[in-house]
Amino acid sequence: MKIAIAGSGALGCGFGHLLKKNGQEVTLLDNWDDHIEAIRLNGLKVTVNGTEETQRMAIYKPHEVKEEMDVIFVFTKAMGLKSMMESIAHIIGDQTKVICLLNGLGHLRTLEAYVDKKNIIMGTTVWTAGIDAPGVTHLNGQGPVELQNSDPEETAAALKIVEILKNSGLNGVYSSNVNYTTWRKACVNGTMNALCALLDTTIEKVFASSTIDSMLTGIVSEFATLAEVQDNIKLDVEETITYLKNLADKVGAHYPSMHQDLANMRPTEIDFLNGAVAEASKRFGLQAPYCQKVTDLIHAKEEILGIESPIK
Amino acid sequence: MKIAIAGSGALGCGFGHLLKKNGQEVTLLDNWDDHIEAIRLNGLKVTVNGTEETQRMAIYKPHEVKEEMDVIFVFTKAMGLKSMMESIAHIIGDQTKVICLLNGLGHLRTLEAYVDKKNIIMGTTVWTAGIDAPGVTHLNGQGPVELQNSDPEETAAALKIVEILKNSGLNGVYSSNVNYTTWRKACVNGTMNALCALLDTTIEKVFASSTIDSMLTGIVSEFATLAEVQDNIKLDVEETITYLKNLADKVGAHYPSMHQDLANMRPTEIDFLNGAVAEASKRFGLQAPYCQKVTDLIHAKEEILGIESPIK
Repeated sequence: MKIAIAGSGALGCGFGHLLKKNGQEVTLLDNWDDHIEAIRLNGLKVTVNGTEETQRMAIYKPHEVKEEMDVIFVFTKAMGLKSMMESIAHIIGDQTKVICLLNGLGHLRTLEAYVDKKNIIMGTTVWTAGIDAPGVTHLNGQGPVELQNSDPEETAAALKIVEILKNSGLNGVYSSNVNYTTWRKACVNGTMNALCALLDTTIEKVFASSTIDSMLTGIVSEFATLAEVQDNIKLDVEETITYLKNLADKVGAHYPSMHQDLANMRPTEIDFLNGAVAEASKRFGLQAPYCQKVTDLIHAKEEILGIESPIK
Repeated sequence: MKIAIAGSGALGCGFGHLLKKNGQEVTLLDNWDDHIEAIRLNGLKVTVNGTEETQRMAIYKPHEVKEEMDVIFVFTKAMGLKSMMESIAHIIGDQTKVICLLNGLGHLRTLEAYVDKKNIIMGTTVWTAGIDAPGVTHLNGQGPVELQNSDPEETAAALKIVEILKNSGLNGVYSSNVNYTTWRKACVNGTMNALCALLDTTIEKVFASSTIDSMLTGIVSEFATLAEVQDNIKLDVEETITYLKNLADKVGAHYPSMHQDLANMRPTEIDFLNGAVAEASKRFGLQAPYCQKVTDLIHAKEEILGIESPIK
C-alpha cells in the first residue's frame, strides 16, 4: 500500500521505518530542510527499542508529492495539524484513509474539514520517540496502538490498518472505545502536564501539594462534563483522580512534555488540552473556568518566555 | 493617649515613631528578639521620607505589657493577625479602639472575635515601609491613611484617630467608604500580585500577555460578585479592569510583594486575597473557580519552593 507519513518527526520516522520494513511503500513528508537533506544523503538512522538501523526512505516536502495515497498517518504536533492537512489535501483521494494518533482533543473536528469522516481512523499510542539529530531518531514502545473507525460503518478499514501495524511490529489493536482512551489521556496531560509546566517542577512535587485534590478535581470535572455532553463518554471524576495519583506515583521524577516545551522555548499543546475543553465548553453553554485559567496562564508564560505563538 | 503598635515591623515602627513625636504615649509590641534588643540598646533608627532620626521607644513582647490601651494599631502580616489578637487580648478593654490598616480581606471577621465591633476602626493606607536591619526601618508616603468606624454609630471615635494621625504627619482622612477602597486594593493585589508571583515576572510582562483580559475578568468578576453579596459594595468589573491596566502602565517594571515573598522564601498573603474570596464565596453558595485555582497554584508553589505554611 502507498502510505504517507504526514509529519516525519520522531514518531513519524519510527512508524514509517517499521511500515517500510514490512513491505509497504512508504513516503515520508516533512518541511524541515536539514532533516530531509540528512535522510536523502545518509538514509534514516533509527533506533527501535535500542537496536539501530539505517534505512533508505523517500522523503519530500508535501507539495513535491503528486499522487494520491492509500493511507496517510498524520504525525504533526497538535498545532501543526491544520496547516499539514492544507498542504496534503491534493494527495487525499476518495478512498484515502487518514489515521490520527495525535495527543489532545479536537483533532477529528479539524480532520473533518479535509477528509470524509468515513475515511478517518482515530487512535492513540503509548509509544514514545525522539529526534537525536537531523535524520537520526529513536522509537521506544511495546504497548498497543489502538485504532477505531470514526464512521461506525467503516470497521473493516480500521481492521485492515490494525493488521498492517501488527505485522510491522507496532502492536496494532482494534478498540471499540478510542474516544474514551483519548479523553483519559487528555486528562493526564491536562493535569500533570499543565500543572508541572505552570509550577516549573516535577510530577511528584505537584502531586505532593496540599492543594492537589482541589486542582485535580477542578480540571478533571470540566473534562468529564464536556466528555459526556459532547461525546457521550463517561469519565468518573473520582476514579480518574485515583488513576492520576497512581500514575504520578510511578512517573513522579519526570518533567512532562509541556514543561520540556517551555524549557526548550517551544509553544505548548495547551490549546488542544485544557484550551480545547474551555473552547468546546463554551459551544455547549458550559463553564470551564479552571481549564480557562490554566490555558490563560500557560499562554502568558509562553509569551513571557518569548516563545512565538504556534500556527493554529 | 496610650497607644500600642501590635506588630512593630516596618510600617508599625514608622507609625509608632510619628505618633510618639506628636506626644502620644506609644508602646511597640513585637516578638522578634533581635529587633527588640536593637531598639532597646540603640533606639529606633527610622528614616521617614528620606530623613533619618533616632528615637527612644518602649518595645515589649505582647505578654510583657499588662495595662489596657486606649488605642491599638494592628500592623501584622495578614496571616499573623489572629495569633497577635490572641496575645494582646489582655490589653484590650471595653473602650480600647483597635485600628486595622492591613491589606487583604476578611480581617474584620477575625477582629470581631476579640474586639467589640463598636471599637473596631478599619482603614487603608498607601504608605510603604521596609526593615533595613533589626531596629532600623524606613517609611515612605504622603497619600491618605483612610479610616472608618465599623459600627455606624461610632463616627466620633474614628474622627478622633483621624485627627491624631493628621497631627502626626500621617495624613489621616475620614472615609465614608473604606470597605470599597479595601475591595479595590484587594482587586489590585489579587490580580497583579498573584499573577506576577505565579508567572515569576514583572507587572508589565503579565499585562502584555494576550490572555490578560481573560485572566483579569475571571478574577475581578469573582471579587465583584462577592463584594456585592457580602458587603453590598459595587465594583464595576470593566471600570476596575481599566483601572488595573492604567496602574500597570505606571508600575510595570515592579515585582509586587507576593513575588518578593516567594523569592525570599516567605509565605504569601494569598489566603487573604483570592483565597479569602474563594472561601467566603462558598459560604454564600457562590462559585469562585478562578480565585480557587490561583490560590491552589500559589500554595503549591510555596510548598514546591519549601516555604513553610503560615500560622493562620
